Amino acid sequence: GHVAFRYTGMPAAEAAKRAAEFQALMQLRRSVRFFAPTPLPEGVLERCVATAASAPSGAHLQPWTFVIVRDRAVRAEIRAAVEAEERLNYAKRMKKGWVDDVAPLVSGLHAGGDVTKPYIEDAPGLVVVMEQPYGREADGSRRTHYYPRESVGLAAGFLIAALTNAGLFTLTSTPMGAEAIIRTSLGRPSNERVFLLMPIGYPAAEATVPFRAPGAERKPTGEAAIIV
Amino acid sequence: GHVAFRYTGMPAAEAAKRAAEFQALMQLRRSVRFFAPTPLPEGVLERCVATAASAPSGAHLQPWTFVIVRDRAVRAEIRAAVEAEERLNYAKRMKKGWVDDVAPLVSGLHAGGDVTKPYIEDAPGLVVVMEQPYGREADGSRRTHYYPRESVGLAAGFLIAALTNAGLFTLTSTPMGAEAIIRTSLGRPSNERVFLLMPIGYPAAEATVPFRAPGAERKPTGEAAIIV
Ligand SMILES: Cc1cc2nc3c(=O)[nH]c(=O)nc-3n(C[C@H](O)[C@H](O)[C@H](O)COP(=O)(O)O)c2cc1C
Ligand SMILES: Cc1cc2nc3c(=O)[nH]c(=O)nc-3n(C[C@H](O)[C@H](O)[C@H](O)COP(=O)(O)O)c2cc1C
Repeated sequence: GHVAFRYTGMPAAEAAKRAAEFQALMQLRRSVRFFAPTPLPEGVLERCVATAASAPSGAHLQPWTFVIVRDRAVRAEIRAAVEAEERLNYAKRMKKGWVDDVAPLVSGLHAGGDVTKPYIEDAPGLVVVMEQPYGREADGSRRTHYYPRESVGLAAGFLIAALTNAGLFTLTSTPMGAEAIIRTSLGRPSNERVFLLMPIGYPAAEATVPFRAPGAERKPTGEAAIIV
Repeated sequence: GHVAFRYTGMPAAEAAKRAAEFQALMQLRRSVRFFAPTPLPEGVLERCVATAASAPSGAHLQPWTFVIVRDRAVRAEIRAAVEAEERLNYAKRMKKGWVDDVAPLVSGLHAGGDVTKPYIEDAPGLVVVMEQPYGREADGSRRTHYYPRESVGLAAGFLIAALTNAGLFTLTSTPMGAEAIIRTSLGRPSNERVFLLMPIGYPAAEATVPFRAPGAERKPTGEAAIIV
């Protein structure tokens, strides 16, 4: 059944201040592809993952698993699989328009036409976000999940927000073509699929990001947010 | 091209403190289905939407539009469409298992077998999150978007985090069957689809939420988060 839900409220001025601070914090976020060796502060990644797992989900079925990958051999395996598949993506799977769209983003990493993703091994943290398109009952039968893709997207958004709030950076990445190999390397069951691969840590001293002209970082407000 | 990305860092103790505080804040979040008439503090919703629009996206194509719905007539139209479709969902589209899965969540709102969603009209704020499965070039031709569903999910996660941080509550909801009517009511173009419908505000004095046994609110950590 339902139970009472009480809320003590927050003065409007406090809400406005907190909203402005959070906006400023989140707008400093960039996707980082070059990580410093600095280790993660104790327990912080675990808390960020727990925060992510508090997200809303269709019928509260929490159709996700966050896998924190510490095992060095597994990380090397994942990197090798992603790099090998990415070479095939470039050679065969991506249309020219796609290659052009991502070229400015990946520049330094794909120098000389080769594909390298060192961050998969050398970022201090690595989280693989798994989506469960369906679940399993105790007896092994299928359990329907509702809006799992939307739900895990929200949870991954919570994860990035939590990391950013704790001064950590990540690269939101989709290891196209390597999903099944990664799932197997992680020993995850057949009702899970790789949703995102997220290296986590601090930018390297020599880290770079794709340039964005000041004021043109994002779609203009009247395009991203409209009022009806 | 790429440009340098510098980060000044945060002491580990500060990161741990911030991560713990953010976790505690976010874990207080619940989906609210009964709203107080209290108006939103000036400018806060707009900031939360701008924060959402800072999310990462495939090839930085920002495949989303956040529509803040103020027009009372449009809100009444959306409510009528969602309620009418939801009656059909219950009568025809949802299997029995699905009805059972959501019954504990919606209880009071669907009393006596009828479907009512007053929050669509009476919450002080309403945001419709639109996904753009593809974009439009200036000449009207299609522009491919990469991972739009994942990207808009992350942005919606940022939105919920931003609202929660500012003391606001929402209901993440999917207006099944009413998507096309809502898109038309909002005057949005054919390359957009309704992703989420989000009433926003403060819980009513008599608001209730589905009961969860203390300690059993979420999947246990060893299930939601695992270490490899
Ligand atoms: C993609 C998605 C769709 C949802 N759709 C509905 C909905 O249509 N109606 C509703 O009452 N709740 C809906 N919910 C809310 C969930 O029931 C709720 O998040 C879940 O029960 C967990 O409760 P909490 O959000 O209070 O933690 C939806 C949640 C998600 C993530
Ligand atoms: C679903 C998704 C998949 C992405 N995949 C990749 C990827 O495989 N490789 C990569 O370098 N960047 C990837 N990105 C990062 C985007 O390029 C980046 O978010 C975008 O350029 C905006 O830059 P920002 O995150 O620094 O704001 C992905 C982002 C999203 C949301």
